[in-house]
Amino acid sequence: MMENQSLFPGVRIVLVETSHPGNIGAAARAMKNMGLTELVLVNPRSFPSNTAVFRSASAADVVNGARVVDSIESAIADCQLVLGTSARNRRIPWPLLNPKSCGEKILSAQAAGQKIAILFGRESHGLSNEELHLCHYHINIPTEKAYSSLNLAMAVQIICYEILLARQAGHDDEVEWDMEFATAEDMQHFFVHLEETLVQVGFHDLENPRRLMTRLVRMFNRIRPDKMEISILRGFLNAINKNRSN
Amino acid sequence: MMENQSLFPGVRIVLVETSHPGNIGAAARAMKNMGLTELVLVNPRSFPSNTAVFRSASAADVVNGARVVDSIESAIADCQLVLGTSARNRRIPWPLLNPKSCGEKILSAQAAGQKIAILFGRESHGLSNEELHLCHYHINIPTEKAYSSLNLAMAVQIICYEILLARQAGHDDEVEWDMEFATAEDMQHFFVHLEETLVQVGFHDLENPRRLMTRLVRMFNRIRPDKMEISILRGFLNAINKNRSN
Repeated sequence: MMENQSLFPGVRIVLVETSHPGNIGAAARAMKNMGLTELVLVNPRSFPSNTAVFRSASAADVVNGARVVDSIESAIADCQLVLGTSARNRRIPWPLLNPKSCGEKILSAQAAGQKIAILFGRESHGLSNEELHLCHYHINIPTEKAYSSLNLAMAVQIICYEILLARQAGHDDEVEWDMEFATAEDMQHFFVHLEETLVQVGFHDLENPRRLMTRLVRMFNRIRPDKMEISILRGFLNAINKNRSN
Repeated sequence: MMENQSLFPGVRIVLVETSHPGNIGAAARAMKNMGLTELVLVNPRSFPSNTAVFRSASAADVVNGARVVDSIESAIADCQLVLGTSARNRRIPWPLLNPKSCGEKILSAQAAGQKIAILFGRESHGLSNEELHLCHYHINIPTEKAYSSLNLAMAVQIICYEILLARQAGHDDEVEWDMEFATAEDMQHFFVHLEETLVQVGFHDLENPRRLMTRLVRMFNRIRPDKMEISILRGFLNAINKNRSN
């Protein structure tokens, strides 16, 4: 891995199942132009790729330094703030940021020492609902309504541009928290535990889920629990589990 | 030419001597995503081009509707507001806009019924100083300093995005003017006339120009004369010319 100079250590761009390696290269160039260098690829169709290096122009270091993983969960496991780009309106509304607010949110989270992932979906159909539910916030890039399908690398360009703008504006108003925020991995473990427990106590029917988990995930992600709070919740679930098996 | 639905009639994107037709297509897609459809190509290296159509995705109508011309002057002749993107700092500072201010300026000028051109230079070295001097404003897109070379279509994407944002924010604070602003063609005729006159009266030495014209062009462009004012200035120059030949 080559040395990358980043204005934004801890801020990573995650491209999910990208089909065209040219888009990976163009995204890397767009990132580097705005001072971002940390690229993670989830199951890219074709990578490593000379096309990606060629399209990256002088950002080959970002392409060559990209980490390839086989699940979104491992791409975001250590992140305390996860954002996902979404073109569509979802059945269940999710906390939504425009690109400018997204840039500001990222800067303030970064100033507080958090690790941050921004997810970009497939060229053909973006991120799935399940993938979007891993995010604290969705990002919607404004477009002309009749023609809203942005090229993947263009979407990366706009978001990275807003991150750089936010830095130049000097936002650092994130509240000083007395405890580290939970990571995505902490949250996943918690949600698994929660669902098991809901089933166990007969509140949640896997045959007829009624979007129950979606609503719970959304709620917990919105409050962004810290590690202490998750530890308390997990302790509570453990207590329920034990009580039940007695 | 196919029918284009534009959110921004009268706002045109001008690509100057583009080398790679893929960039023309990607720029067309970026434009259409943000509601712009008017594309002018000054001496493109390779056009019409299947690559351009392919890269435009569903914005082939913008590519096919592009007007090809052989000079910047004819691309902007009827425009009252001309902006040019520039990555470099110039020896003579020029009125400068960031992309956000650029979007707002364009929206308010458009609301006042003006025709507007935004110039994007060559992939390799942008716009020349002479070309930049045709502009009322330069636009600088913020980048990481160490790696500032944006892809052409990415630059188009960011500017068009800011134009759409400005529209959504509803800026319409351009002063109601009682007279049409001068067009770029009016201004060019005036500058030629001005320079001839300066030489004629012995104030301007073409062997030793000392950037005199550059400074005058900048000044007159900054005040954005209306047609009546240019007519008055031209009348004044005519009077000087006649006086001299007597």
